[in-house]
Amino acid sequence: MPGREKLRGFRSWENVDVARERLLSRIRIPLEVEEISIYEAAGRVLAVDVVAPADYPPYNRSAVDGYAVRSSDVTGASESNPIPLRVVGTVEAGTKPEGLKVNEGEAVLIFTGGELPEGADAVVPVEYVDVEGEYVYVYRSVAKFRNVSLRGEDFKARELLAKKGTMIRPWHVAALAQGGFKRVKVFRKLRVGIINTGDELYDVVLTQSGGGRIPNSSGPLIASYAEELGCEAEVLGIVGDDEVRIREILINALRDHDIIVVTGGTSVGGRDVVPEAISSIDGAELVFHGVNLRPGRTAGAFVVRGKPVLMLSGLPVACLVGLENFLKPVVEKVMGMEPLPRPKVKARLTRRVANAVGFRSHYRVAVFEERGELFAEPLRLTGSGILSTLLKGNGILILDESLEGVDKDEEVEVMLLGPIYKGRPAFLKW
Amino acid sequence: MPGREKLRGFRSWENVDVARERLLSRIRIPLEVEEISIYEAAGRVLAVDVVAPADYPPYNRSAVDGYAVRSSDVTGASESNPIPLRVVGTVEAGTKPEGLKVNEGEAVLIFTGGELPEGADAVVPVEYVDVEGEYVYVYRSVAKFRNVSLRGEDFKARELLAKKGTMIRPWHVAALAQGGFKRVKVFRKLRVGIINTGDELYDVVLTQSGGGRIPNSSGPLIASYAEELGCEAEVLGIVGDDEVRIREILINALRDHDIIVVTGGTSVGGRDVVPEAISSIDGAELVFHGVNLRPGRTAGAFVVRGKPVLMLSGLPVACLVGLENFLKPVVEKVMGMEPLPRPKVKARLTRRVANAVGFRSHYRVAVFEERGELFAEPLRLTGSGILSTLLKGNGILILDESLEGVDKDEEVEVMLLGPIYKGRPAFLKW
Repeated sequence: MPGREKLRGFRSWENVDVARERLLSRIRIPLEVEEISIYEAAGRVLAVDVVAPADYPPYNRSAVDGYAVRSSDVTGASESNPIPLRVVGTVEAGTKPEGLKVNEGEAVLIFTGGELPEGADAVVPVEYVDVEGEYVYVYRSVAKFRNVSLRGEDFKARELLAKKGTMIRPWHVAALAQGGFKRVKVFRKLRVGIINTGDELYDVVLTQSGGGRIPNSSGPLIASYAEELGCEAEVLGIVGDDEVRIREILINALRDHDIIVVTGGTSVGGRDVVPEAISSIDGAELVFHGVNLRPGRTAGAFVVRGKPVLMLSGLPVACLVGLENFLKPVVEKVMGMEPLPRPKVKARLTRRVANAVGFRSHYRVAVFEERGELFAEPLRLTGSGILSTLLKGNGILILDESLEGVDKDEEVEVMLLGPIYKGRPAFLKW
Repeated sequence: MPGREKLRGFRSWENVDVARERLLSRIRIPLEVEEISIYEAAGRVLAVDVVAPADYPPYNRSAVDGYAVRSSDVTGASESNPIPLRVVGTVEAGTKPEGLKVNEGEAVLIFTGGELPEGADAVVPVEYVDVEGEYVYVYRSVAKFRNVSLRGEDFKARELLAKKGTMIRPWHVAALAQGGFKRVKVFRKLRVGIINTGDELYDVVLTQSGGGRIPNSSGPLIASYAEELGCEAEVLGIVGDDEVRIREILINALRDHDIIVVTGGTSVGGRDVVPEAISSIDGAELVFHGVNLRPGRTAGAFVVRGKPVLMLSGLPVACLVGLENFLKPVVEKVMGMEPLPRPKVKARLTRRVANAVGFRSHYRVAVFEERGELFAEPLRLTGSGILSTLLKGNGILILDESLEGVDKDEEVEVMLLGPIYKGRPAFLKW
């Protein structure tokens, strides 16, 4: 039986931003670079600045199918005053004009992407001409460089296309292709190892039945979350509340993984075995333990020779709050990424929510649209294990630690987890 | 040389919402179901309603480490008035109380997740007791069911956990695990086949050098975009402006794929070969051709025996606008999904943008934060091929067809493509 001192537990809850900054400043993870096909690059993180190898477009080219002209030749052209030009050649799409020249009174048929021939300075789209024999009648004037994509107007040689640390999206892949790159250098994926502690847990996938024990839901939660962030994740298994065994698994995990997430055993109960197990590992430094998050205040972190070991609640909602506050920033820091934008909306609160001043509270809310307006209905304040609030809810409302609460009808910003409900959802009609 | 009628091109631009609805109403794609491990489920789409197999929690259980008591026994307990209770047993985490009973004046040591023993109706956390021999001194009163998770409070047997058509996120994976599911039924991935037409194009990955031709950037763009949506994508190759060859490749593509995206050859020039190639295929019905999108107004669609064939511009920005307006809704419709929320922010325009009334214009903007306020700087109106605006820009501002423009300093809603700039970015300081 633990003594009174120990049972009294946490005396203070550190500000989560301060705790996070200290954690980030102590992380050192060497990240190797891989070269992969641009077709596999989406979702990966650039390990180098990508610079345009040459001007793009590589020459002045037509943006439409039409006739390359001298713009001064067609000044004043209109439906009632068509101007005839003699067609002296054709430039196919994506080709060079092969010695063609447009003199006064002349035009060249040109297809989209064709290089503008010498002499021409604009293109009249085919919609505004009639063709008769070797002549084209132009019905509309064009300004200089009209319907022409100028050499280097998209990007110039040596211009930065995307910087190191960019999470590659479809348009970056398109830019890589346009720049002529077949392959691209990206950081290897971070390897996240997950250890779930607790005598009460059983593994749903490996075990036939729990025999009264609780299914391990935080393991799959953390693994899926880490994979969404672009990491490789491995659930290393469930460990009982056994300090020696936890230590052994941690030492192995630190060999093969960059980031370790441990759940459970971090509370202030009589069985606070995880921090003890970690602190006995060579090089382990406690960074924080206990933060002003609600739910999730028992979160903590060690750094072991530059690698973070996050201690999170095994209760799913508290765990998710911990992942959002610590795992996401750690991954972004190591990869050198800017924080990725999360979908957020402004909505009107349907009832007051209270906050324990000093804590940053995470309410699950249901965001719904009614008569063109968005509303947020708070689902439940406490209950860090109440997973159903994340299923019925489609948003998280964060109350800053300075607030005593937010009143009914006030506008709040909500982080969206899923689609907005059309109309007040049935489960709210109690 | 094409005749005058043909060259005149599109006479009208159909409203994009009307065109899209007609397309969606004509699509019939049979979607087989696969059963996969919950660990592989994130990002996939549920093919069945998932229903809780039993109450969760399965019994009233302790939410903390502490002492299970009769709440009436500790009424009035405080630091100055500790109430002693005799400890008659222990309930381990995740276990049943094995015949234990809490009578008046008694308590049972209970760990988080343990089942509340008969007689007890609340738990006093270990922080609020002292232990002396076989007695525990309680320093705080507890209300009935305090620190107890009630049977079925998270979800009840047969309650809907997640409905068919849900895109599985980490919390759904956690709920599946908590419900005891090892595997889950999801729809197979949609197969998107991509055909890029145009004599001017060359394939960056397969070809050493372009020889004056233009790299195919829309193929990789569409493939990455479709994969982000959760599809399998295959770039079927580049085809010259050859109607017979395009038709042949389309017929093959329709055999192996659910959705075909064809770029190029859909303009009003002399080489409008794609619509001709598609319409000659057995069962092909034109749904629309020409919509009020800017850029991207040349977009069109056929349906061939229930499968959509989207015709989009090969120019990257116009192509992306087409994907967002047609491919994303098609995938969501076929999968039965609600539209996924995109990150959006409100920002103040740094200069006026104009709109050609009747067109839904897509401006690329750079969103930046300055002195705590968000601003959106429009990058370029036209230039559907100007990929750099998607790289430097981090957002899309959509102007509705009813607007003539939006003034400087007005607040607009912007769809975010990437992280918000901190301060006005250097490339805007011209």
